[in-house]
Amino acid sequence: MAVYTEISDGELTGFLAQYDLGPVLSFKGIAEGVENSNYLLRTESGVYILTIYEKRVLREDLPFFLGLMDHLAVHGFPCATPVRGRDGESLRDVAGKPAAIVSFLDGISLRRPAPEHCGLLGETMARLHLATADFKMRRANGLALAGWRPLFESCETRADEIETGLESGIAAELDYLERAWPQGLPEGVIHADLFPDNVFFLGQRLSGVIDFYFACNDFLAYDLAVSLNAWCFESDGAFNITKAGQLFRAYGKVRPLDAAELAALPVLARGAALRFLLTRLHDWLHQVEGAFVRPKDPLEYWRKLRFHQGVAGAGAYGIA
Amino acid sequence: MAVYTEISDGELTGFLAQYDLGPVLSFKGIAEGVENSNYLLRTESGVYILTIYEKRVLREDLPFFLGLMDHLAVHGFPCATPVRGRDGESLRDVAGKPAAIVSFLDGISLRRPAPEHCGLLGETMARLHLATADFKMRRANGLALAGWRPLFESCETRADEIETGLESGIAAELDYLERAWPQGLPEGVIHADLFPDNVFFLGQRLSGVIDFYFACNDFLAYDLAVSLNAWCFESDGAFNITKAGQLFRAYGKVRPLDAAELAALPVLARGAALRFLLTRLHDWLHQVEGAFVRPKDPLEYWRKLRFHQGVAGAGAYGIA
Repeated sequence: MAVYTEISDGELTGFLAQYDLGPVLSFKGIAEGVENSNYLLRTESGVYILTIYEKRVLREDLPFFLGLMDHLAVHGFPCATPVRGRDGESLRDVAGKPAAIVSFLDGISLRRPAPEHCGLLGETMARLHLATADFKMRRANGLALAGWRPLFESCETRADEIETGLESGIAAELDYLERAWPQGLPEGVIHADLFPDNVFFLGQRLSGVIDFYFACNDFLAYDLAVSLNAWCFESDGAFNITKAGQLFRAYGKVRPLDAAELAALPVLARGAALRFLLTRLHDWLHQVEGAFVRPKDPLEYWRKLRFHQGVAGAGAYGIA
Repeated sequence: MAVYTEISDGELTGFLAQYDLGPVLSFKGIAEGVENSNYLLRTESGVYILTIYEKRVLREDLPFFLGLMDHLAVHGFPCATPVRGRDGESLRDVAGKPAAIVSFLDGISLRRPAPEHCGLLGETMARLHLATADFKMRRANGLALAGWRPLFESCETRADEIETGLESGIAAELDYLERAWPQGLPEGVIHADLFPDNVFFLGQRLSGVIDFYFACNDFLAYDLAVSLNAWCFESDGAFNITKAGQLFRAYGKVRPLDAAELAALPVLARGAALRFLLTRLHDWLHQVEGAFVRPKDPLEYWRKLRFHQGVAGAGAYGIA
């Protein structure tokens, strides 16, 4: 939510000289995206976002992320299109860091999406999963099951500082998930971070999806599990079955879930809850002095995890 | 450089319902202005900035600031125009804080202005001083001579933590300025914070002045002293007499300085340097845990102050 890398006048001029965007009208740092520095760039040819990738995004992953956005945009999916420079490349360096310019997307992210927005999300997510069927690049999910135990071990001994019993609770959940994690579900490219702040709406239309920097190959239904947690709980912690029902129903109209996916939803939802619990726990316990970002509450995801532990089947998620 | 106040979906909708700006296309927090929360707002009628005033700006001062911007814009000065709601008011509350919408200004602030930019600044500053001659509201300068000693006393005992000798050096300078401060110079409305990040350029044109939240009534030449310090020293601390010459020459073509103002320039420059030294020293010694803003280096202004202590007359500033 801040600008980490500042660009000098000369660096900006030199960078933009490699594009055909016309004279610059304005250039402002924007508070968007937790991990990177983002600038809103207006030139005589239009409005763009210039992103400078900070250290949490690996340079070797950038061709996958930019290639994916390009592929999706070409297929009519509502995401930003990477802008190519005169050399045909969309990725280059500025201020010693990798950077790219993408087209600007209209729309507003909602802090409190309504059930109809969950439906629009479900439909759009299914379109994303279908549109990437012929996308050739691959990227493993670094925050999948195999990555959770090392993450836990990096903060295991201090977990009870947050809440008594958290350490043993997570340990037991990890043991369960390592035994119960499904195999052989339909796979493909997932966004993996479809939270409300990454989805824009204009009136009753979903106008854009941003922040593809966790996208990877994994079970398609895991993407639903991430968004089930992020969109279908109220701020008081209550699960909203109406929102979940809309999410799954709208998704299923575009890409029907098979029986194995439906049966796996509760365990996928537990895994998705644990993944965000662990990264939030890690960020909470490893706060950087002087950092711009306030860490998010890990316990929000501990409560979501416990909800899913009590779920017997997909019916609890409003799926008829 | 951050967004301090977040607005809920409902608060934004309710706030904008009081204006005739048309449907919202996008709404993004921007990293502009150190003190307030700023959002870039695009609607079907145009581009705007929504500012939420944080605690450093006093609510009772806002009619002066907004009235001044309105007055200047009407007189063709390149600043943002406050937008009035259906009730004719430009100031109202959102999220429990005062807020206003102003028009968006194209342009880019320069980190390293060249001599010609200093000339454009001088000409524009003189136009500001002339255009406000008939502005009826008044606001005292809370950071003028009388405010410096209390500010010093709030950090006096810890000044030497920053550099040995700083405490006695500031004490001696305060004694000097209280004796030598000029009287009876031409007064009027000054911006009082015309730093490079508050001035936008488009190519070879000065396109906008922002951040009027220190504007007040004071000696007109004091505005020049503030900008002399902010624009005419290089990053290595060297004074750039070419830039200063351009600043004063361009200012004088629009509003000639009288003999008393010219004679007072060195002491005004010392005072302006001390004012920023003291506020930076205060912010440095009173850093807020978890604050978004990194405090600026007080010693930069200590070095500028010492430069002016060695100046005998206005000739040292490139004034022929």
